[in-house]
Amino acid sequence: MITAARVRKKLGWADIAGEIDAPLVWCVAALLGQHPMPAGQAERVCALLDLDSAVAESLQSQPSRGIDPALLADPTIYRFQEALAVYGPALKELIHEEFGDGIMSAINFKVDIARREHPDGDRVVVTFDGKFLDYRW
Amino acid sequence: MITAARVRKKLGWADIAGEIDAPLVWCVAALLGQHPMPAGQAERVCALLDLDSAVAESLQSQPSRGIDPALLADPTIYRFQEALAVYGPALKELIHEEFGDGIMSAINFKVDIARREHPDGDRVVVTFDGKFLDYRW
Amino acid sequence: MITAARVRKKLGWADIAGEIDAPLVWCVAALLGQHPMPAGQAERVCALLDLDSAVAESLQSQPSRGIDPALLADPTIYRFQEALAVYGPALKELIHEEFGDGIMSAINFKVDIARREHPDGDRVVVTFDGKFLDYRW
Amino acid sequence: MITAARVRKKLGWADIAGEIDAPLVWCVAALLGQHPMPAGQAERVCALLDLDSAVAESLQSQPSRGIDPALLADPTIYRFQEALAVYGPALKELIHEEFGDGIMSAINFKVDIARREHPDGDRVVVTFDGKFLDYRW
Amino acid sequence: MITAARVRKKLGWADIAGEIDAPLVWCVAALLGQHPMPAGQAERVCALLDLDSAVAESLQSQPSRGIDPALLADPTIYRFQEALAVYGPALKELIHEEFGDGIMSAINFKVDIARREHPDGDRVVVTFDGKFLDYRW
Amino acid sequence: MITAARVRKKLGWADIAGEIDAPLVWCVAALLGQHPMPAGQAERVCALLDLDSAVAESLQSQPSRGIDPALLADPTIYRFQEALAVYGPALKELIHEEFGDGIMSAINFKVDIARREHPDGDRVVVTFDGKFLDYRW
Amino acid sequence: MITAARVRKKLGWADIAGEIDAPLVWCVAALLGQHPMPAGQAERVCALLDLDSAVAESLQSQPSRGIDPALLADPTIYRFQEALAVYGPALKELIHEEFGDGIMSAINFKVDIARREHPDGDRVVVTFDGKFLDYRW
Amino acid sequence: MITAARVRKKLGWADIAGEIDAPLVWCVAALLGQHPMPAGQAERVCALLDLDSAVAESLQSQPSRGIDPALLADPTIYRFQEALAVYGPALKELIHEEFGDGIMSAINFKVDIARREHPDGDRVVVTFDGKFLDYRW
Amino acid sequence: MITAARVRKKLGWADIAGEIDAPLVWCVAALLGQHPMPAGQAERVCALLDLDSAVAESLQSQPSRGIDPALLADPTIYRFQEALAVYGPALKELIHEEFGDGIMSAINFKVDIARREHPDGDRVVVTFDGKFLDYRW
Amino acid sequence: MITAARVRKKLGWADIAGEIDAPLVWCVAALLGQHPMPAGQAERVCALLDLDSAVAESLQSQPSRGIDPALLADPTIYRFQEALAVYGPALKELIHEEFGDGIMSAINFKVDIARREHPDGDRVVVTFDGKFLDYRW
Repeated sequence: MITAARVRKKLGWADIAGEIDAPLVWCVAALLGQHPMPAGQAERVCALLDLDSAVAESLQSQPSRGIDPALLADPTIYRFQEALAVYGPALKELIHEEFGDGIMSAINFKVDIARREHPDGDRVVVTFDGKFLDYRW
Repeated sequence: MITAARVRKKLGWADIAGEIDAPLVWCVAALLGQHPMPAGQAERVCALLDLDSAVAESLQSQPSRGIDPALLADPTIYRFQEALAVYGPALKELIHEEFGDGIMSAINFKVDIARREHPDGDRVVVTFDGKFLDYRW
Repeated sequence: MITAARVRKKLGWADIAGEIDAPLVWCVAALLGQHPMPAGQAERVCALLDLDSAVAESLQSQPSRGIDPALLADPTIYRFQEALAVYGPALKELIHEEFGDGIMSAINFKVDIARREHPDGDRVVVTFDGKFLDYRW
Repeated sequence: MITAARVRKKLGWADIAGEIDAPLVWCVAALLGQHPMPAGQAERVCALLDLDSAVAESLQSQPSRGIDPALLADPTIYRFQEALAVYGPALKELIHEEFGDGIMSAINFKVDIARREHPDGDRVVVTFDGKFLDYRW
Repeated sequence: MITAARVRKKLGWADIAGEIDAPLVWCVAALLGQHPMPAGQAERVCALLDLDSAVAESLQSQPSRGIDPALLADPTIYRFQEALAVYGPALKELIHEEFGDGIMSAINFKVDIARREHPDGDRVVVTFDGKFLDYRW
Repeated sequence: MITAARVRKKLGWADIAGEIDAPLVWCVAALLGQHPMPAGQAERVCALLDLDSAVAESLQSQPSRGIDPALLADPTIYRFQEALAVYGPALKELIHEEFGDGIMSAINFKVDIARREHPDGDRVVVTFDGKFLDYRW
Repeated sequence: MITAARVRKKLGWADIAGEIDAPLVWCVAALLGQHPMPAGQAERVCALLDLDSAVAESLQSQPSRGIDPALLADPTIYRFQEALAVYGPALKELIHEEFGDGIMSAINFKVDIARREHPDGDRVVVTFDGKFLDYRW
Repeated sequence: MITAARVRKKLGWADIAGEIDAPLVWCVAALLGQHPMPAGQAERVCALLDLDSAVAESLQSQPSRGIDPALLADPTIYRFQEALAVYGPALKELIHEEFGDGIMSAINFKVDIARREHPDGDRVVVTFDGKFLDYRW
Repeated sequence: MITAARVRKKLGWADIAGEIDAPLVWCVAALLGQHPMPAGQAERVCALLDLDSAVAESLQSQPSRGIDPALLADPTIYRFQEALAVYGPALKELIHEEFGDGIMSAINFKVDIARREHPDGDRVVVTFDGKFLDYRW
Repeated sequence: MITAARVRKKLGWADIAGEIDAPLVWCVAALLGQHPMPAGQAERVCALLDLDSAVAESLQSQPSRGIDPALLADPTIYRFQEALAVYGPALKELIHEEFGDGIMSAINFKVDIARREHPDGDRVVVTFDGKFLDYRW
């Protein structure tokens, strides 16, 4: 519903994120149902897109997070999956060497995406940035 | 074998990558069997680790790439998987909006990992950087 | 909806592809929801098939790509799957030998299908044609 | 064993296929265990690679055909899988329209691979060529 | 819909197959959606069962073939699955010994079912009859 | 071991089945580990193939029956699987119509395979013949 | 529908089974869609529960048997599954030792459930009783 | 090892169970690795079968319980699985009606198997007998 | 429905549990469909939330217990799953050492959740408390 | 190896944990390969169990964490899995209500197990205690 309204209004994701003063990837993820949105932001989004208050309420509710497994085969998403299959164990080695035994948090965490211009063709640059958490009993 | 030799020699991954003048994540991935290594680099690694020439040959051979599915449940690797489940569809939306219909290449691609200091605890910063490829018939 | 309209209008896929001046396989794939269609083409298809503008809009939207796994068992599709199981590793060997370490792109890519007449029975000839992409860090 | 011997002898796949006068993809597939090889060819391959007669015998035995599922995730092979997911239903539509209800045989079948030069980067061209079989009760 | 109409009309499958002059198993499979039916037969079936022309049209359309995996666990169907698990490799051995390397076609193929009387209890006799296809490059 | 010995002795399956006076498919299935063999037959097979008494003992032991799932994708075996997917529900309908609610036994059961000559190419004819068992409380 | 009606009428399963003079477990299984019910019984059940004749007809139709896999994880059902995992191979050994090579029929078969009083807490006693079928070619 | 020794000694399972004064199904399950055996019984079994003390020790160790999933497709075991699929939900209904909300314990539990003579063919009778446990917070 | 009503009424879970004098986790689980609720409690919940008697009836009915597998990937639930993967075998060792061969009952069982204040950040404390059941034949 | 040595030495897990002054569950998990052990502790464990220094080294290495899926069906471990299926969504609701949107950490985390005496039979009490982490961008 939000996607359709957004297209109808000819609004970009950055327009919406700007309107509610939220980080871009967080904002898109929230509108796709992966984060509950504070009341004020939910209402401003619905005002911007001419959606009614039931939508605003549902944007505030606590979601079950996760992805439809069928989407993991979409080529745009699959390339991240493939990169994780090829480089995941190397990242694990380097996290342990640099930080010790632990993980990059996926909760105290942010993602950003940017375009990097390049003479051979522009590049997609995605940054995962999470707090290191060490195993601590 | 390489891991054991590396520990015995008390060499860090960065020491090895430095010795063969290769990017860090690429070097670890190659030594974990995800990239064939040019002959010169393979031989220098084996010299550094006191491994024989059979190892150097096997480092140069063309691998089958991929990850043992059991490893995807290792907590350090799983957090990337979880981040992809939560933010993958948002990244897809933003790639399409910014670049058009296409993908971030996982072949013309590099990954980097860094430590970012932070008063609340240092952070793991992982950057995926791939050429945008548009669907082009 | 498009399939039903096409049958009702007694139009072949080639008729539609010709009308919008698009490659045949691309055109069918787009109408089956695997490619977004430019506005002009989407509107001409809908005009040709007497479908309303909502269909034209949905043809332009960005799809999630992929196949219902149940369809992979359809005998006509399964034979491609079987050929890939039998000859996939051989194709991998030959790509690496001829081009080096890398892949055939599935994005900068086209498929064609043709009938080749043959005294023992005509043959289906399907050509996959994708740019070689080498692993490039 | 064959792969190792081939590398040691510095022979390309085309050298072996030429020696036994066999189509290239068929020859590689057979040596990877997907086709039984006639006695004469099996012996010539083993002579060429200095392998003993037990290998020649095993090359002649009837194999169980198929692929290790883990290999389907290798990026070089996966791109064919992805192309099939995106274009398989379109190929099915076009086979039925052009030939009627039936399949492209994967048994009376051949595959070829070629390099096509292109100013934007050379291309991998793979041709699947199978006899059409109509459902015939 | 067809099943319900058939029961309401108290018609056996053999009655319908006889009416359209079609082999029995083919006719049932076609009415269960596994074969497109020629227009004349589709219309005669609908006339016989008092079904309207939309059903006749849908009987003529090209189906996606296959079985709901849940049905494979139905005991009546599962016994065939079990027989294939127990005797499939033996059938493969014997096909290769008698015919050479190849398969029994499932396309140029027919199935028949019959009752064979027997003093210890009548028997179900199912015959699979398909053209041998040899691997032919 | 039995397969290798059989090839070395240049004995066909029918030769072995004849020697022990057993039905052909049963004999092959038993030697592939799907049926325990009576002591006399097991010993005659081992004598014929110059195998020792440990083999004869293991041929008599009670097996766990079933098929390696990877084998179900072998093309020669898969065609039976595909036929079952396409015609299984039709067979179920016809068994229930002709015999009532019940199954074809896979235990009180035999399979036969034959070659049927045909001007368009010889045919593989496989007959499943099992006692009907009705649901009887 | 039947469950709701049964609760509304405050009838136990044993009341229904008694009314139609059927074994208890069979009756419940039939009303849950695992057995077709003879016309007379189906009508008496519907009369008892004030359900209309369409329900009676559907109770007589031939079902596809099997269980929703999600139900296998229900704790009450799972304990049977667990007992089968722990004791299934032992039961197989003992069936073969006592009866020879064969199975307990699940078709010529009945199940019963009873309460057995016990000072430490009453016990659920479930009896599986099926005809032994020996492998008979 | 135990199975082989048992066959060599020509001892039935009942002989072993009798020797150690244990219930038959329990004894077989324990020897198949599903129950730890008290030291005295483990030693008597090993004495009976001429096995050394290492076996006796391993019979006493705490096992991981469960079944190789491939064994669930063995026909003798599968019939129990099928009966559970067909009658499991009915058993659940009847346990809840007779005992209330809870389960049949699979821990405070025993299984027995018996032959019941019958003019139409002897029957396998398997009894599951477990304490009822009600949900009790 | 209950969740929506609860939010509309601005009632916390503890308010509802208090109203019906039930343990907190049990109450939430029951309202999410994992426990049948006694009539009195079901009616009081519906009165509190202004829901009609059909809801009260459905709260009393016997549920099929279990979790939608997609929910296991929700990060809040997954962390319990991960803890079980990492510490489950250790808990098994310690249960066997301390109590003998057996299990912690999940039926005679309760769960509690509490907040424990901590200077480094408050902690979630979840207690599983189940009766030990020893394997008792 | 450690398990065998421990049994041979007749040492309980608590003895080992006490010797190295480590929490009990952590110690068992570490010795089962889920945590790297500091050098001092690893050496003291090996001294206690008469194991050589290679074991001590392997106890210090960074593990891949996770559980063999077959172990999840072991009854002692499965009961935790079942409790999670039944109560997981309730725990999620209560964590969100009490703490806000976030998770219980499985990294800054400890588990404890205790015996609680009870007149109806002693109880297993397992406590999961993890820091609350809120989603923080």
